[in-house]
Amino acid sequence: MDIKQYMQQVGQQARTASRAIARAGSNAKNAALTAIADAIEAQRPQLLKANSRDLEAGRERGLDAALLDRLELNDERIAGMAEGLRQIAALPDPVGEIADMTYRPSGIQVGKMRVPLGVIGIIYESRPNVTADAAALCLKSGNAAILRGGSEAEHSNQAIAACIHEGLEKAGLPRDAVQVVNTTDRAAVGELIAMPEYVDVIVPRGGKGLIERISADARVPVIKHLHGVCHVYIDDQADRDKAIQVAFNAKTQRYGTCNTMETLLVADDIAADVLPELGAMFKEKGVELRGCEATRRILTDIVAATDEDWDAEYLAPILSIRIVRHMEDAIEHIHRHSSGHTESILTENIGRARRFLTEVDSSSVMVNASTRFADGFEYGLGAEIGISTDKIHVRGPVGLEGLTSQKYIVIGDGHIRL
Amino acid sequence: MDIKQYMQQVGQQARTASRAIARAGSNAKNAALTAIADAIEAQRPQLLKANSRDLEAGRERGLDAALLDRLELNDERIAGMAEGLRQIAALPDPVGEIADMTYRPSGIQVGKMRVPLGVIGIIYESRPNVTADAAALCLKSGNAAILRGGSEAEHSNQAIAACIHEGLEKAGLPRDAVQVVNTTDRAAVGELIAMPEYVDVIVPRGGKGLIERISADARVPVIKHLHGVCHVYIDDQADRDKAIQVAFNAKTQRYGTCNTMETLLVADDIAADVLPELGAMFKEKGVELRGCEATRRILTDIVAATDEDWDAEYLAPILSIRIVRHMEDAIEHIHRHSSGHTESILTENIGRARRFLTEVDSSSVMVNASTRFADGFEYGLGAEIGISTDKIHVRGPVGLEGLTSQKYIVIGDGHIRL
Repeated sequence: MDIKQYMQQVGQQARTASRAIARAGSNAKNAALTAIADAIEAQRPQLLKANSRDLEAGRERGLDAALLDRLELNDERIAGMAEGLRQIAALPDPVGEIADMTYRPSGIQVGKMRVPLGVIGIIYESRPNVTADAAALCLKSGNAAILRGGSEAEHSNQAIAACIHEGLEKAGLPRDAVQVVNTTDRAAVGELIAMPEYVDVIVPRGGKGLIERISADARVPVIKHLHGVCHVYIDDQADRDKAIQVAFNAKTQRYGTCNTMETLLVADDIAADVLPELGAMFKEKGVELRGCEATRRILTDIVAATDEDWDAEYLAPILSIRIVRHMEDAIEHIHRHSSGHTESILTENIGRARRFLTEVDSSSVMVNASTRFADGFEYGLGAEIGISTDKIHVRGPVGLEGLTSQKYIVIGDGHIRL
Repeated sequence: MDIKQYMQQVGQQARTASRAIARAGSNAKNAALTAIADAIEAQRPQLLKANSRDLEAGRERGLDAALLDRLELNDERIAGMAEGLRQIAALPDPVGEIADMTYRPSGIQVGKMRVPLGVIGIIYESRPNVTADAAALCLKSGNAAILRGGSEAEHSNQAIAACIHEGLEKAGLPRDAVQVVNTTDRAAVGELIAMPEYVDVIVPRGGKGLIERISADARVPVIKHLHGVCHVYIDDQADRDKAIQVAFNAKTQRYGTCNTMETLLVADDIAADVLPELGAMFKEKGVELRGCEATRRILTDIVAATDEDWDAEYLAPILSIRIVRHMEDAIEHIHRHSSGHTESILTENIGRARRFLTEVDSSSVMVNASTRFADGFEYGLGAEIGISTDKIHVRGPVGLEGLTSQKYIVIGDGHIRL
């Protein structure tokens, strides 16, 4: 069987299983999630053994330390996977929720019912815990999943798949509700993203390169999480101390996350008041600052920012700083350079807060809060499969609801259209 | 300037105008819509003159009578366009609506704000009234629009565009908020659907061929309305008289619409009771019936349905009829042959109604109501730009809300993440 035939078979099986999982009740789905968590804990030795094969192969192939760290499973991470599954079991089930049911003048009742998308293809890189995580979110939202992990985590992913299948069978749900693609051939990805008859949406999780490649070639809708070039704007009517704390937190609370501030915009009139203290704090923390000309007249020992800096997602202790005349210029800069992920204004002026919230076109827009809050758990979604920087279907952190849609339902009593 | 340069310029202008239209207040948008309606009424002679040029060219090119009829503007249709604009002005503005604002344990407030999608490209065929209609829906929902009508309606569309620009200017909104592509070169469509930097979503309105072509080539998300192969299933626990009335209405109230029933499924146990009377009604109305074997044992004078019939969108006085054992078989047939548009069960059994509503995966699912109700006006959307048979973003009739999205908004008071 070649790759195309294999992926077609995977697709057909997913489509068939999607009908069963779509109508499965919450109890069955939760039982499956709990059984998967139990299996993961019970099969810890097998998971560690499979993982050690991946780690060994990775070392032989010369993977760097960061990649090997992402690849590694240990007792704590296995416990974390099981805990994540139980948390998702505890979330409310979005499927079947009926909203806005009203009588129309014709006498029919019209409302919307929340329904699964069908089959979700997830393409991801080295972290094996994504296998359990993504499977759980798809299951709970009533979708069948086709998971394609990185080849470097092959054995770990298959071992986790065994736990998932055990849990599904215990709960009386079809094994094929979650399939982990059983080949490391790259052509499998090409097939997966070109089967609109079997796959309803693709969620790629990984680097910008992977996501851009997939988006360019996909014949199926893609929920993209491209990258995070996030901005904080300190308005001249900001509270000086709050502004310094929030801007510092947005950059330094964690460097490698997509909701970390990458560029700080400061209103001209407050720059001389906030930048010296902020500059000293960043310096002490080891953050490299790159400034515009005006910034460098205040922070005289920092390097000049280049044009590339305004578009950079550093994911590192580096920050670019630009002084702008007023909020309009800040918004203009954001619309030109932001990736549409998260932006925050720091101001005590309610009019400006209102305008910033309305006019900035990003998936999360904030007032007096650190961009680091842009996250499914902080927002109360309970779990997240990614953060969408797309504009259609879903924006921002994507939880269970983002993996569903709404269909119309109509109830009459023999009503005909006149 | 070649087509690519021209379309790039159109795209850039739309992107710039989209910022202004996104933050425009409801009063300004409604003033523009009313002013466009006034201009359309005031320029009736010019519209009729431009339209007569299109009609003449169409007759020379040998367009058939149905196409010429769709192309024609007359006093009544011009009044209808103006009336449609005023109706859209009277609808509530979806933009800026804030939902689900709650305090999170961290102290931040998180909610969702409804926002425009940005720039919408609409590709449509001969009816010139779509130009006014689509422009109005995009404007009201805070989007900039790029409209590409059929070449056969070129002069009519440009005359309507002049009215739209006059109205926009009167209301102080940028002309470029609505641009009607000013070339009949087919390459313009290819450019329009491949500019993700300037266009956020494409809505094609036209035949299945056009929509499939656009979906295959688009580099931009597409809200598709493919076709309607709609089913009515008469359950053995249906009320005989209601069932006959509803099934008759679903086929005959109008033949050429996408929500018209194309296949009737009948439970074995009720077939002999309902089919003779229904068959006689259809025969009297001039509807050609094509039946499965079992159907032809009851309706002995009808032709046999072929495999193609079960997938056909007739848009004509033709109906295929199949007898099934029970609801499960009906759902199975629907999942195999439906286009995902609209299906209706006729039954008095609440358990079956509940299961049909939940399990059938179409954009509208109905109980004891004619499929002809699947329509933006009947559902109370006030207006509709199409009916989505897609599964992501929006399903079923697409009104103003379908042309918007939701972003997260966060309000803190100096909150940092710990």
